[in-house]
Amino acid sequence: MSKPLILVTNDDGMFAPGIKALVEVASQFGEVVVIAPDSPQSGQGHAITLTSPLRLNKVDVFEGIDAYECSGTPVDCVKLAKSVILKDRKIDLCVSGINHGSNASINIIYSGTMSAAMEASIEGIPSIGFSYLDFSFEADFTSCKYYARQIIEYTLNQKLGKASLINVNIPKLTIDEIKGIRVCKQAEGNWTEDFVESKDPRGQSYYWMTGEFYLESKEDDTDIWALNNGYVSVVPSMHDLTDHKAIPSIKGLENSN
Amino acid sequence: MSKPLILVTNDDGMFAPGIKALVEVASQFGEVVVIAPDSPQSGQGHAITLTSPLRLNKVDVFEGIDAYECSGTPVDCVKLAKSVILKDRKIDLCVSGINHGSNASINIIYSGTMSAAMEASIEGIPSIGFSYLDFSFEADFTSCKYYARQIIEYTLNQKLGKASLINVNIPKLTIDEIKGIRVCKQAEGNWTEDFVESKDPRGQSYYWMTGEFYLESKEDDTDIWALNNGYVSVVPSMHDLTDHKAIPSIKGLENSN
Repeated sequence: MSKPLILVTNDDGMFAPGIKALVEVASQFGEVVVIAPDSPQSGQGHAITLTSPLRLNKVDVFEGIDAYECSGTPVDCVKLAKSVILKDRKIDLCVSGINHGSNASINIIYSGTMSAAMEASIEGIPSIGFSYLDFSFEADFTSCKYYARQIIEYTLNQKLGKASLINVNIPKLTIDEIKGIRVCKQAEGNWTEDFVESKDPRGQSYYWMTGEFYLESKEDDTDIWALNNGYVSVVPSMHDLTDHKAIPSIKGLENSN
Repeated sequence: MSKPLILVTNDDGMFAPGIKALVEVASQFGEVVVIAPDSPQSGQGHAITLTSPLRLNKVDVFEGIDAYECSGTPVDCVKLAKSVILKDRKIDLCVSGINHGSNASINIIYSGTMSAAMEASIEGIPSIGFSYLDFSFEADFTSCKYYARQIIEYTLNQKLGKASLINVNIPKLTIDEIKGIRVCKQAEGNWTEDFVESKDPRGQSYYWMTGEFYLESKEDDTDIWALNNGYVSVVPSMHDLTDHKAIPSIKGLENSN
């Protein structure tokens, strides 16, 4: 069997410690190609660039590994990797991250890290988004690398079955402290936003978003529960947003005129 | 009963004919407040603005209706409306659009229109995204307004049941030609991307995204089927991205070390 081709991407850019950790782990399993945004793209969700052109530059960051910076969003990165950089080649796995900060619960919706992974999964590539519950630039990625290795190996052995995208979050704990992996569902939760209003030097108002996460789910089978209880959370995720259970309940719309 | 409070938003900005049509319809049902991005935000998905401040300006566009322009994304607009403009008031309905172009199938993922509506639904507000399969600035919104009226009335009568977000797409047909409404699921489909490569005046390459949609679903219960067969498509949608069916199939991950 030839070496698997692994695409590594993120939303924090090429110089984030998280992507370095992920490149290190992925390189143990196959040929790695890296593409990352040339500026931080946290909170970019599934944004794509339609009204302006994209730049793509080869960069020398990781020894012996092809790496590219792109001027667009994380989703643009994956599209460019598939259609330009790796055109005509089969990508065996896409790994995104390791994000600095949680993408559990509703955060998946806003996350550039997870949207990049989702874009690859839409293209039929098995994909994993990794996030670490430590925002610090000096974060210790030892436990992340340990679990990333395990989960990448499992995925390359085609054990994801029907899943094509998984959202992995790792608690800020040492390997010894982490109790293992929990496969779970996305917790229901949300942010209570607040906007700090200030005045610019010309006296005009501006608003800066801030907020606090609150958890709604009380069950013990959610990603937030797993993280709060010392587990790595793994949520199989998908791009079909249909609320299938709700279809019968709004059938009345078909006869509403 | 007091008049319902209806938030109108979009991703094409305040001067798109689509939002004008939607304001016109919504005004027949209640008090309308409009917030729209100050520049076109197509393809912005669920992006939010974290690293720069937001501007919010009251504008005089629709007679007798409070309207605001925001410098951020469609999701930022909804967050600002809820937390700043309409703080302490209950929003009874959020309508987004009418988008110029389809948001059926996988397009929901990239759509600023649908992400704005989804953001409102995450906040617990019943929400509807409307899209019209006509990109033209001169598009005739007569049939859109006819169906928007019907669907808004149905929603305000609290008949959405378990659904809190619906994705409505309207075919480019006259009222007489449209066969009615179909409640359906999101079709499986994707874009085959192509990037047009060109050189700037300094000889540097740039890439411009283009692509063609291809449909994978063959069933007759999808949004694309409905639209291709002369129906208005309505898909109940949600922000739980968990692939619940896949959970049992990857339980092996819990014992992978």
